[in-house]
Amino acid sequence: MDFNKTRYTLMNRRRRIYEGKAKVLFEGPEPGTLIQHFKDDATAFNAKKHEIVDGKGVLNNRISEFVFQNLNDIGVPTHFIRRLNMREQLIREVEIIPLEVVVRNVAAGSLSKRLGIEEGTQLPRSIIEFYYKSDKLDDPMVSEEHITAFGWATPQEIDDIMALAIRVNDFLSGLFLGVGIRLVDFKMETGRLWEGDMMRIVLADEISPDSCRLWDIKSNDKMDKDRFRRDLGGLIEAYSEVARRLGILSENESTPMGGPRLVQ
Amino acid sequence: MDFNKTRYTLMNRRRRIYEGKAKVLFEGPEPGTLIQHFKDDATAFNAKKHEIVDGKGVLNNRISEFVFQNLNDIGVPTHFIRRLNMREQLIREVEIIPLEVVVRNVAAGSLSKRLGIEEGTQLPRSIIEFYYKSDKLDDPMVSEEHITAFGWATPQEIDDIMALAIRVNDFLSGLFLGVGIRLVDFKMETGRLWEGDMMRIVLADEISPDSCRLWDIKSNDKMDKDRFRRDLGGLIEAYSEVARRLGILSENESTPMGGPRLVQ
Repeated sequence: MDFNKTRYTLMNRRRRIYEGKAKVLFEGPEPGTLIQHFKDDATAFNAKKHEIVDGKGVLNNRISEFVFQNLNDIGVPTHFIRRLNMREQLIREVEIIPLEVVVRNVAAGSLSKRLGIEEGTQLPRSIIEFYYKSDKLDDPMVSEEHITAFGWATPQEIDDIMALAIRVNDFLSGLFLGVGIRLVDFKMETGRLWEGDMMRIVLADEISPDSCRLWDIKSNDKMDKDRFRRDLGGLIEAYSEVARRLGILSENESTPMGGPRLVQ
Repeated sequence: MDFNKTRYTLMNRRRRIYEGKAKVLFEGPEPGTLIQHFKDDATAFNAKKHEIVDGKGVLNNRISEFVFQNLNDIGVPTHFIRRLNMREQLIREVEIIPLEVVVRNVAAGSLSKRLGIEEGTQLPRSIIEFYYKSDKLDDPMVSEEHITAFGWATPQEIDDIMALAIRVNDFLSGLFLGVGIRLVDFKMETGRLWEGDMMRIVLADEISPDSCRLWDIKSNDKMDKDRFRRDLGGLIEAYSEVARRLGILSENESTPMGGPRLVQ
């Protein structure tokens, strides 16, 4: 049996709602649901750099499932319903707010560059940044002034997003600290979930080593997408190690790369 | 008499506190005061472009005096005390807050570029932006999160700065509208003025065609530093026209360029 062919057929039987750089959204089994499919595409610098990394989608699906399920369990609202298979999860359909919300605990990446702060410097407190989601404009940083003036979110929604971002940061910081990983920063997205006349802001998209900076506490080794951005190699090994530490891959479960090939 | 030599001597008898790209600050005649001296230097793109424009300092001193005096009169607190001569004004010494505060009414410049909005588009409402004053870092845009995390200003001070920025924008919009000029945007700086144990945020620095975008309402002609930034020529003529419309240069007073040379 040709698994790739089977996957291709399955993907095309369903209505494709949206295709992003690393994921595809399909129509879900009932109204108000979608299927979020994790691809193996690794991109950086607004897709100017692009590779296929075999098995990345499988790992991110599992890691993101773990994070979102645990956030649901502690009462942080998310779009996540349940994982369906190796690459897919069932989610609630939300109205995506066109902002990338970045929470930073330690200086790295663009913050270090823009403000001249050495990478690895602990910030005086966590900093929340907003970037307007636009590939064409390279996701420019924006402030509450731009967000409210252009109607991307209301002041009340910004307050809700920031409160959500702090809760997610608190949970993730603790989670990763517990497994010897420093949460340097992460990116999240949010959406409006309508339930009758009521609307609330929920966590959407994914949380995975694609969207976090994760440094090993002892060695300072990078265990995230910077391995790809900065050509450090060992991306899948790093993502697998994150999954293993979180208890997602059992000790003797092989990574998606090794042993018999997993169905993708 | 050699006026240039006289000026040179006068400038050097006083203690120089700070020299910026377009102004010099000297020790004032009594404690808590400074003398703000307007130079003829025109710079853009973080001083990568630089020229001497004869008479610009004289015009900016007069225009800024007019704006600050009128703001004082309507109860908007500023550092301005009085003009001393063609190039100098007496000001209160303040603790400068290291932020450039930009208020925008119409899309232009970096906002147009970053957010993909055509120059000249009326914004849905006025937008206030903050840039961290650092030549080394090219004045990066920052948000309230960065400002408070790094201690550049407190949340209360940011509120005061924004309230001040709105008052200044309201006054300037009206003032320029009255003389057929559209206030597209402007940059202002603020400082902490201590009076005993009391501190308040006041408007500092200057407001002039160097720090505003001013478009003629009928012709859309630029009457500001963009003439220099974009090599349009006619800088002094444009600044003189702004001064003339504001009633600062009387109808038959020549511009600093024409007729008998003014003492500089």
